[in-house]
Amino acid sequence: MAGHIKIFDTTLRDGEQSPGCSMNIEEKIEMAKMLEKLNVDIIEAGFAVSSPGDFAAVEAVARTVRKPIVASLSRAVEKDIDASWDALKKARHPRIHIVIATSPIHMKYKLRKTSAEVLAQAARAVRYAKAKAKNVEVEFSAEDASRSDRDFLARIFSAVIDAGAAVVNVPDTNGYAMPREFGELISYLKNNIPNIGRAEISVHNHNDLGLAVATSLAAIENGAAQCEATINGIGERAGNCSLEELVMALKVRRDYYGKAKQPRINTRFIYPASRLLTSITGVQVQPNKAIVGANAFAHESGIHQDGILKHRETYEIIRPADIGRTDSRLVMGKHSGRHALVSKLKELGYTGLTETEINAAYHKFKELADKKKNITEWDLEALISDGVKQATGAVYTLESLRIETGNKIQPTAELSVNYQDKTLQSAQTGNGPVDAIFKAIDAVIQRAALGISLQDYIVHAVTEGTDALGKVTVRIKKNQKTYTGNGANTDVLVASAEAYLNAVNKYLLRSE
Amino acid sequence: MAGHIKIFDTTLRDGEQSPGCSMNIEEKIEMAKMLEKLNVDIIEAGFAVSSPGDFAAVEAVARTVRKPIVASLSRAVEKDIDASWDALKKARHPRIHIVIATSPIHMKYKLRKTSAEVLAQAARAVRYAKAKAKNVEVEFSAEDASRSDRDFLARIFSAVIDAGAAVVNVPDTNGYAMPREFGELISYLKNNIPNIGRAEISVHNHNDLGLAVATSLAAIENGAAQCEATINGIGERAGNCSLEELVMALKVRRDYYGKAKQPRINTRFIYPASRLLTSITGVQVQPNKAIVGANAFAHESGIHQDGILKHRETYEIIRPADIGRTDSRLVMGKHSGRHALVSKLKELGYTGLTETEINAAYHKFKELADKKKNITEWDLEALISDGVKQATGAVYTLESLRIETGNKIQPTAELSVNYQDKTLQSAQTGNGPVDAIFKAIDAVIQRAALGISLQDYIVHAVTEGTDALGKVTVRIKKNQKTYTGNGANTDVLVASAEAYLNAVNKYLLRSE
Repeated sequence: MAGHIKIFDTTLRDGEQSPGCSMNIEEKIEMAKMLEKLNVDIIEAGFAVSSPGDFAAVEAVARTVRKPIVASLSRAVEKDIDASWDALKKARHPRIHIVIATSPIHMKYKLRKTSAEVLAQAARAVRYAKAKAKNVEVEFSAEDASRSDRDFLARIFSAVIDAGAAVVNVPDTNGYAMPREFGELISYLKNNIPNIGRAEISVHNHNDLGLAVATSLAAIENGAAQCEATINGIGERAGNCSLEELVMALKVRRDYYGKAKQPRINTRFIYPASRLLTSITGVQVQPNKAIVGANAFAHESGIHQDGILKHRETYEIIRPADIGRTDSRLVMGKHSGRHALVSKLKELGYTGLTETEINAAYHKFKELADKKKNITEWDLEALISDGVKQATGAVYTLESLRIETGNKIQPTAELSVNYQDKTLQSAQTGNGPVDAIFKAIDAVIQRAALGISLQDYIVHAVTEGTDALGKVTVRIKKNQKTYTGNGANTDVLVASAEAYLNAVNKYLLRSE
Repeated sequence: MAGHIKIFDTTLRDGEQSPGCSMNIEEKIEMAKMLEKLNVDIIEAGFAVSSPGDFAAVEAVARTVRKPIVASLSRAVEKDIDASWDALKKARHPRIHIVIATSPIHMKYKLRKTSAEVLAQAARAVRYAKAKAKNVEVEFSAEDASRSDRDFLARIFSAVIDAGAAVVNVPDTNGYAMPREFGELISYLKNNIPNIGRAEISVHNHNDLGLAVATSLAAIENGAAQCEATINGIGERAGNCSLEELVMALKVRRDYYGKAKQPRINTRFIYPASRLLTSITGVQVQPNKAIVGANAFAHESGIHQDGILKHRETYEIIRPADIGRTDSRLVMGKHSGRHALVSKLKELGYTGLTETEINAAYHKFKELADKKKNITEWDLEALISDGVKQATGAVYTLESLRIETGNKIQPTAELSVNYQDKTLQSAQTGNGPVDAIFKAIDAVIQRAALGISLQDYIVHAVTEGTDALGKVTVRIKKNQKTYTGNGANTDVLVASAEAYLNAVNKYLLRSE
């Protein structure tokens, strides 16, 4: 079974479950296309039974991507497996991923079942899933495996392999395992599951103690063939194994892991994938995040700068270009043309823009270049994720906005908005200027009648100076569904208005 | 030599070297006091020879803390060692930390020396440092050790131990090592340095591949007695080993590492130390940062919430209270009294406030409670780090600020500021409202004449809704020295003005 390490991306399932990271179907599709470019082996697109939104997302991803296997999570019950299969039918390579907990604490308190009952249920579920279709692959996960009895784990894995599972997954659900210990567990399983020759071992590790990448690598050293990971390491609590760190460790240390195990990731899309996820969710990575953080390649101290100048490899083990990062943050100025813009956007991973979108982006770019001397990658990403989509899909368009605020006066916002060729106006006061703006928008769009509510208002950190773009994300909610809008402007208040209207427009367009 | 694992904190040296993390002396002292409460064994306070500011910071920390050893970094040259010793003289427990690179690539391209020359220089430097005083301890670091020849490493360590080094440090300078491999290196050194019985092995690992904590733990399993780490894992590029992850891995897995090795860290100060550093530098940790991230203890998905409700330990391996995180983010409201405020501030680590500062905080708290229903820990920290210090040390005070802005008008700021009982006024326009405000402040304080320049303007992410506090950090610079000001207000524009004035006031107070 030896071969390249398979990368199972669960950004759209386990990642999406974490606070602030929920995505709607369009966003999941955009992300899935990027994951296909990245060339991940498996995309877990959702947990089909959990909500109609998740079901639809799995179905949409299954229809969209061609090369990767598409997986849907299911508990070990028929209802879940039915939903997963119904959502996956259109996938070229469908995989049903079945999970049940195997640790004493989970079996006793959460499942309230004996280990024999759990084993029987697992095997039954795998057999049921496998019978769905000829081309369906079944993966079985033993939740909280790292705190499970080793012997029981070996027995349940053996049973599910007999039932037809092609992959047995060993999650360190709570990020509790130490790397050496986890490596030994994998080695034990490899040596104590009699029919392991018919399946591959996978791992799915959490980062509660900062060790998700290390435990995954230890598993690879001991025979694991698949690793589950997420872009930027997002996920419940401290997140999952970070895909970019795992892949780059394997690549940088090819001498250590061996050529045969090299993952088939197109690393030049690592940075674009990270940036796309950040722009969709609004959840930032810290500056010192390995591989994709703003400072990951920055050298500040005199000693290091000196070394770098004399010989790059003294302090640099990865070339930024290999992961799709351009060397310089400064990319364009006032005199850059449309062609330069398009090629820069391609570099950032925005390859599927329509002519109308490119024109809108170019227009916005020129506007910004008049206000701001140096346009950075971040500015361009803000233009794309905010301005362009807004310009091409808008229903409400901001015509004018005027704010008066300060520490001694009541903040007031006056705005006029275009809606189907009519101008609508409102003026409101509030606790602070953003509150006033949102009240004015509420009046104009008749929020109460629409039945939507504000879920999140997020101002992204600005780190570049007083003329940097302020970026705002607004999430609104109607009937369990979330719509995300973005705005970017040198005036953070204007950006706030744009973001709110953008979210409302997305709602209107999608509910048509 | 077996005993507890010693924690060598280098937040103030290697951490402070990273972009955006520079601290002035007062900030370093505040941080050092917190590290003493955390009960770290060693505080590396700076690199004395590198600048007068670093020298003064080492001296100030040496005078301030009593229990921890205080260290200063030096290259293996007399000038550096002299500076370190001069700065450390007042320390109760001084340590001179000498570093020279030992890898072929560093010796060849950076040092341009042979390995024999490097060995001789290292031993000479250690002897020179050791001769400074009876109570001085010497630590020797072999930079880029993980890419050095093992045999040469053993020889140079043996030579410096003979010369008087009590600690030999093995840095994975570029975060290149894999955990098992790094553990084997430590084991090799342990077995191949004849006089290792007279010294302790330390490690100092970087996070370029996300493995700094894992390589440190592997070293501990193989006999390392000291680990170098930073709060929040800050440091060059992807940062250093994160102190909180390292310590909590050792504590949570006491069963694995053994009771004897438990570090003597007072874990209840882990979260306060993380928050203090964030508030000083303005550099945030990402929400999925292990231990200290906003989501590290959040449980969103249905499956997990269900498990947590049935039995906490199904998904929780650390109790938030053990690291000084209160269970709930929501802490106070309008009716909370002065006493409640003081005890909450103590919980957050602010124990040394004067009466005047507490009164100022209480006043600001009541003002905020009128505007905002729920006051969270973050709000309180903003009050302390911004409002309180401003109220008690101000030279310029913001009297009134009025801003007009929008997408179709020229942003204008009108402000009046009190300075030594006089009211100074200015009105300016700008590219965006922040630019206008800063120009008005420039006019009032006569910035050009003061000779200060703006270094950073940072808006911190807002994630709590339209009535959350906007937090702004401004850094200004004069003659290589940086002054950091903070502002917090429900109106981010008012917060921007406050932050700028606060930075100017800090400059004025400190340059008196």
